[in-house]
Amino acid sequence: MIILVDQDDVIADFNGYFLTLWRQKYPNLPYVPNEERKSYQTINDYPENLADKVKDIYYQEGFFKNLPLIGGAKEGMEEIKNMGNDVFICTSPITKYDYCVKEKYEWVEKYLGKEWTTKIILTRDKTLIHGDYLIDDNPNIKGINKPTWKHIFYDQPYNINIKNDLRLNWANYEEVFKKISQG
Amino acid sequence: MIILVDQDDVIADFNGYFLTLWRQKYPNLPYVPNEERKSYQTINDYPENLADKVKDIYYQEGFFKNLPLIGGAKEGMEEIKNMGNDVFICTSPITKYDYCVKEKYEWVEKYLGKEWTTKIILTRDKTLIHGDYLIDDNPNIKGINKPTWKHIFYDQPYNINIKNDLRLNWANYEEVFKKISQG
Repeated sequence: MIILVDQDDVIADFNGYFLTLWRQKYPNLPYVPNEERKSYQTINDYPENLADKVKDIYYQEGFFKNLPLIGGAKEGMEEIKNMGNDVFICTSPITKYDYCVKEKYEWVEKYLGKEWTTKIILTRDKTLIHGDYLIDDNPNIKGINKPTWKHIFYDQPYNINIKNDLRLNWANYEEVFKKISQG
Repeated sequence: MIILVDQDDVIADFNGYFLTLWRQKYPNLPYVPNEERKSYQTINDYPENLADKVKDIYYQEGFFKNLPLIGGAKEGMEEIKNMGNDVFICTSPITKYDYCVKEKYEWVEKYLGKEWTTKIILTRDKTLIHGDYLIDDNPNIKGINKPTWKHIFYDQPYNINIKNDLRLNWANYEEVFKKISQG
């Protein structure tokens, strides 16, 4: 099977790192603990008057490069590959691409190894990318095409109450893959 | 229709700029005029003992950013879009991604405008990208999937003798699109 895996908040901890930097920089401003996040987009969970400050955090140089690895993601990616699947990292850069684009590659090389950088697909429209499954935390993926993939939700607080046939995290992915491999 | 358009040697003049820099840097070494190029890969048209020198040209900072626009490419891209097609730039970065990845975005912004940067798809395997047509100078596109697109060759000396049902350049693309639009 061809398995597409999203990067931010599936293998790289965007939300965790955002919160760390936010609280360091603005200890007196409100913040949203990750378990209370309601929206897929960080910016939608913060008051509108803080939008520019929120963006400045992930616009800064080094943000995407320094995201921590989500626990179990590296082993999970390797194991899904070793099951005989073709695994790709399918990720959407932010429109301010200045640091994001290159740093996404650097992150993959740093945490998963150089070979995985050849498996990166950067696209703003994931419906154009062919796969059997897409593992993604975004509960509402839009694009111009009818996707060939089935969407497996990667568990995050903002999608956990949305019904979907398939979901996983790096603690239970083996069960999920056992199930989908049996058709 | 969904139209995928390759970047290097279709809209950006990789081969022309390579040759300019090569002759500037190594005026006493042999070179291959573009009209005599036999291979899609620059490196395969040069003696093996020059391979590292060849690579150093396009590995250098600024190479991808400073590629000249191929004449007619901007107008062609805009017109194909204005015919009602969804047009994407579908391009493979070199494995040494250090400058290439970001500079491909910068190039698109510089020559086509910021909006087009949201239409970039970076992938090493173009067979995974869905489209009705892919305009590409590489006569032999490989990947793990059976592509949904039909391949339109973009005219270059190294593909001109290879038979293909569809080919175009930025001087005759309107005729070609008239033909394919009629099915």
